[in-house]
Amino acid sequence: MIIVFKPTATEEDIDHVVDRLRDLGLRSHMSRGQERTVIGVIGDERLLDHQPISVFPGVESVTPIMAPWRLVSREWQQHDSVITVDGVPIGGKLITVMAGPCAVESLEATVGVAREVKAAGGAILRGGAYKPRTSPYAFQGLGREGLDFLVAAKRETGLPVVSEILDPRDTDVFLEKADIIQIGARNMQNFELLKEVGAYDKPVLLKRGLSATIKEWLLSAEYIVSRGNRHVMLCERGIRTFETHYRNVLDLAAVPTLKALSHLPVIVDPSHATGQWDLVAPMARAAVAAGADGLLIEVHANPECALCDGEESLKPHRFNALMKDLKILARAVGREV
Amino acid sequence: MIIVFKPTATEEDIDHVVDRLRDLGLRSHMSRGQERTVIGVIGDERLLDHQPISVFPGVESVTPIMAPWRLVSREWQQHDSVITVDGVPIGGKLITVMAGPCAVESLEATVGVAREVKAAGGAILRGGAYKPRTSPYAFQGLGREGLDFLVAAKRETGLPVVSEILDPRDTDVFLEKADIIQIGARNMQNFELLKEVGAYDKPVLLKRGLSATIKEWLLSAEYIVSRGNRHVMLCERGIRTFETHYRNVLDLAAVPTLKALSHLPVIVDPSHATGQWDLVAPMARAAVAAGADGLLIEVHANPECALCDGEESLKPHRFNALMKDLKILARAVGREV
Amino acid sequence: MIIVFKPTATEEDIDHVVDRLRDLGLRSHMSRGQERTVIGVIGDERLLDHQPISVFPGVESVTPIMAPWRLVSREWQQHDSVITVDGVPIGGKLITVMAGPCAVESLEATVGVAREVKAAGGAILRGGAYKPRTSPYAFQGLGREGLDFLVAAKRETGLPVVSEILDPRDTDVFLEKADIIQIGARNMQNFELLKEVGAYDKPVLLKRGLSATIKEWLLSAEYIVSRGNRHVMLCERGIRTFETHYRNVLDLAAVPTLKALSHLPVIVDPSHATGQWDLVAPMARAAVAAGADGLLIEVHANPECALCDGEESLKPHRFNALMKDLKILARAVGREV
Amino acid sequence: MIIVFKPTATEEDIDHVVDRLRDLGLRSHMSRGQERTVIGVIGDERLLDHQPISVFPGVESVTPIMAPWRLVSREWQQHDSVITVDGVPIGGKLITVMAGPCAVESLEATVGVAREVKAAGGAILRGGAYKPRTSPYAFQGLGREGLDFLVAAKRETGLPVVSEILDPRDTDVFLEKADIIQIGARNMQNFELLKEVGAYDKPVLLKRGLSATIKEWLLSAEYIVSRGNRHVMLCERGIRTFETHYRNVLDLAAVPTLKALSHLPVIVDPSHATGQWDLVAPMARAAVAAGADGLLIEVHANPECALCDGEESLKPHRFNALMKDLKILARAVGREV
Repeated sequence: MIIVFKPTATEEDIDHVVDRLRDLGLRSHMSRGQERTVIGVIGDERLLDHQPISVFPGVESVTPIMAPWRLVSREWQQHDSVITVDGVPIGGKLITVMAGPCAVESLEATVGVAREVKAAGGAILRGGAYKPRTSPYAFQGLGREGLDFLVAAKRETGLPVVSEILDPRDTDVFLEKADIIQIGARNMQNFELLKEVGAYDKPVLLKRGLSATIKEWLLSAEYIVSRGNRHVMLCERGIRTFETHYRNVLDLAAVPTLKALSHLPVIVDPSHATGQWDLVAPMARAAVAAGADGLLIEVHANPECALCDGEESLKPHRFNALMKDLKILARAVGREV
Repeated sequence: MIIVFKPTATEEDIDHVVDRLRDLGLRSHMSRGQERTVIGVIGDERLLDHQPISVFPGVESVTPIMAPWRLVSREWQQHDSVITVDGVPIGGKLITVMAGPCAVESLEATVGVAREVKAAGGAILRGGAYKPRTSPYAFQGLGREGLDFLVAAKRETGLPVVSEILDPRDTDVFLEKADIIQIGARNMQNFELLKEVGAYDKPVLLKRGLSATIKEWLLSAEYIVSRGNRHVMLCERGIRTFETHYRNVLDLAAVPTLKALSHLPVIVDPSHATGQWDLVAPMARAAVAAGADGLLIEVHANPECALCDGEESLKPHRFNALMKDLKILARAVGREV
Repeated sequence: MIIVFKPTATEEDIDHVVDRLRDLGLRSHMSRGQERTVIGVIGDERLLDHQPISVFPGVESVTPIMAPWRLVSREWQQHDSVITVDGVPIGGKLITVMAGPCAVESLEATVGVAREVKAAGGAILRGGAYKPRTSPYAFQGLGREGLDFLVAAKRETGLPVVSEILDPRDTDVFLEKADIIQIGARNMQNFELLKEVGAYDKPVLLKRGLSATIKEWLLSAEYIVSRGNRHVMLCERGIRTFETHYRNVLDLAAVPTLKALSHLPVIVDPSHATGQWDLVAPMARAAVAAGADGLLIEVHANPECALCDGEESLKPHRFNALMKDLKILARAVGREV
Repeated sequence: MIIVFKPTATEEDIDHVVDRLRDLGLRSHMSRGQERTVIGVIGDERLLDHQPISVFPGVESVTPIMAPWRLVSREWQQHDSVITVDGVPIGGKLITVMAGPCAVESLEATVGVAREVKAAGGAILRGGAYKPRTSPYAFQGLGREGLDFLVAAKRETGLPVVSEILDPRDTDVFLEKADIIQIGARNMQNFELLKEVGAYDKPVLLKRGLSATIKEWLLSAEYIVSRGNRHVMLCERGIRTFETHYRNVLDLAAVPTLKALSHLPVIVDPSHATGQWDLVAPMARAAVAAGADGLLIEVHANPECALCDGEESLKPHRFNALMKDLKILARAVGREV
């Protein structure tokens, strides 16, 4: 941590800070410049997490040096984490495609789309049973019954299942019925939920919050990992900006950035990022070219009748065509789909 | 709802949409322009919540006309809602000041600051017992014990208490110990929590999400009110933008906008909005001038030792001076503090 | 400037940076922590403006310490700058109200509105002769003739005139006909235009760019002042965010922030910030309460027929009522309108 | 255009609007719903550009239907525009790579890097002679002499040259010395400069503004094309968001979106978008996969000594490796580099 003093800071002000640092077991390394005095703090600066140095008299600014995460960092673990879900690896050479409807609507539809996903080469079935909807009047999902339909579809196709949890009180049912628990964008900083899923071994797909920074996102992953659950994958799904032409702005630079900072697998969701089915294929291709370890794609047999996000769902034949493109593209960047 | 067709849309495309609208019990009003055909939908357009018209062939765009909220709207209730908390009115002519520490730290400190808040003219005591922290390594709050300290401070001073809930499993303890339940910015779209607090009569202070639109915010309030709890107040606390000079950008235009769209009281939190104690007083003044019904202000006897957000806390003498200013200012805009 | 090295940096990497700093005439102050080595640079860090230290091998991050502006800073000049325009002071105890139409449309309308502005207590007449419009098909302003109408209105009323320049080739005509040259939001980083107006003594009103940081804005002011023109005032006019309910988000925390960082006067434009006439009065009041030195307000006798931005223009009787409110409010914060 | 009336609107209010529309030569198509009356405007809604309908009494909202641009739209021209610059096509099957230093620094360096660009397969040489710098104390470019160095490099290598104009007074020298005139992000809404370059036949590369919407960007292109210059290419270079981990957020969804809305070629600049050389290659690959027609990449022989943006410059051997990757990737998506 670097502490910069105002030009008007007194010797007393500086001593006051140095004393406090010493009390915390930290050493100070002082530089006296022409206009400013600067202290470099030596030692574990996380000791300062509970200590607001910036309010000390004479202090102008405080800048952390160390990344605030630890267990999820590349420094902590240099090799890529590979998470294996029912035999499906996530995070290695293979690019894992997870696909299915936004919301689970019926047994038939769920099994039907699972077969299409499987036939096209998808590795994991996605489907929402509990739906976080902006409006209280919108379809809120089938709940536990929806999870049962996913389980049935898995029985038919062998595809492991990823589904979103909304409430820590539902953990048991997710542990039983889902293969990957999804934490949605709106819950990325629902810390009680993060702590809850951190208490088990079950793989977690952690979506980026609507306006979460890379730093906040990795700290949310750190919440889960620091509770003992190392099976975390990160999922970029677009961020909120001033642009209203698409629902969100897909931030693909997050992919190589996360791969450099962290050992966790990185998935991309082009469907929620854009909110428009005709942008899904080009953004899926771009995600693969940027180095994503997996994709999360919405597929619906009849988007006109989808109860949620039909706008962004691919019809099965379009998903199938995309999968063919992705196989060629993956090979061009030294990966496999 | 207005449905605009592409220039290339066929008669069949248009009929297909009209038929679907008729099936839903809606009437269509068609305008054929030189370049585009447009349908105005007549009837309750919420019937279209589960129907993605934009994916129908030939459709170019779909624009809602009606506001998607109902119970929180000015159209539903024309007079201002006034919420009374232990005799303290929120939402009328009086501007209600809620103040106290970011986090509850000890019994002595809590009672001490409550006395200072009371002496300066504050009407409600704020204090966080459960703290949502970006990092898992930061102070997470005292939990239930913290709520007990707030109760003790209330016993001493008579000030009702507002505190933040994080987990629906804690509802019972909040119903017992808090006078107002705060839903924090990170939980504004934690819909399970909204439904939970909507099931009781207890007043709720609903903070705006970090990047929530006015529309999303009012819909989150609608979640609570539509479950039966009408005692909701909205709290503007700054939004996330590109500017990094302060923590957030306080969006004061939200105040008159919400007062026009909704009958709910509007509170402003200049402390979290700015993250800097020296900006709290000017922004508190600006909030009052903009028409806020209340303020939420952090006060700490010794910010240097605060376990959370010391940077933005006012010392009691500064809070006291601010209260004096606000009394004069409130009178200049026809209100009282 | 603080230079942090990666844990993997070699002694050679560190020496390489130290050597380069020495070549530039700067001294290094090294701190070797447990995980990182850190160098504090001593001397004028602006010498590093042309030197990208962050690309040196082994360097993890580079953080500037000194503010990059100089002449506009409070450190450079501790007292408030007061700019006097034809006897009207801007930046002292008085809050200066500049008002008038978005675009100059005719001689009669301009003189008429100037009389209304004067009668209500406005001190300066605003009016756009050259209009920067998003669409090439929108009204582009009357140009030089518009400036002549403003001059005529000044002759009638005595009000000095502020108008926006778009093109450095028009400087001569602005020097002759305008009392304050406005640089609009879209030109805040039109550096050639900044250099041009910096070459004269004429007062400049520099609007904040749509997504300009405080830092970039002050550096744009520094462009003008460093060329010799010290008569610069800053004008906050809302920033672009994700919120679409109003045109921009008025960032009032910028007012006390700029007053702390700089000695220049700070004006607020609630009309362009909100784009809605009914938000102008509450935001004007909030700006005064936040400490603004002046306001820029659109007034139009007949907004229904305004050729530009009628949505945000106040009718004269509403402007008159607002001025009365502001007089009371200003007194409550120790100022005068 | 769709005009929605408030529930409280009177018959008089509605008639007043209908009358005004009739005066402008537009027809009204009225829908009377249960809660709202709605008017669909029939005819060229650009007639309403000078008419602020939203301020008419009783009007709640006004929504345009037609895209406000015309000449740059796909509706106007259905086939892709291909711009040929000295025999180099931009906008067809070929993906055109433009590369070179951020700023031109010397004759030797410019010719040297041009040879490297050519050898690696680059088609156009980029280099800044006039540099828009945030700080007045940063290197401002060599000006006209810099253009001469680019001309010399072209003579040596045959590569056409793209360089940025800042001032309309420099148009003549750019017409003589540059093959493509670049309008930078900060000047995307410098409308006088747009009009100026619109008056000639010279190809223009129009960068997206820092916070420009797709709509504003296309309207800026329309400024140029409507003045007669059809040789416009659009360049995505990242937008400003809340994320500070990279300089900007590259918005690749803009690529397929622009290709759908407009016939103009779309270029991507991964160097300025990210501001970090190690993100340039993955983002260049992603841009190609997303459908970009070209790339703009910074290359510098010695980034440590670059006078501008060394952080984001590729060394020639890295650029060479990237070009090899891009050739493989382009083939995988049916294009050529």
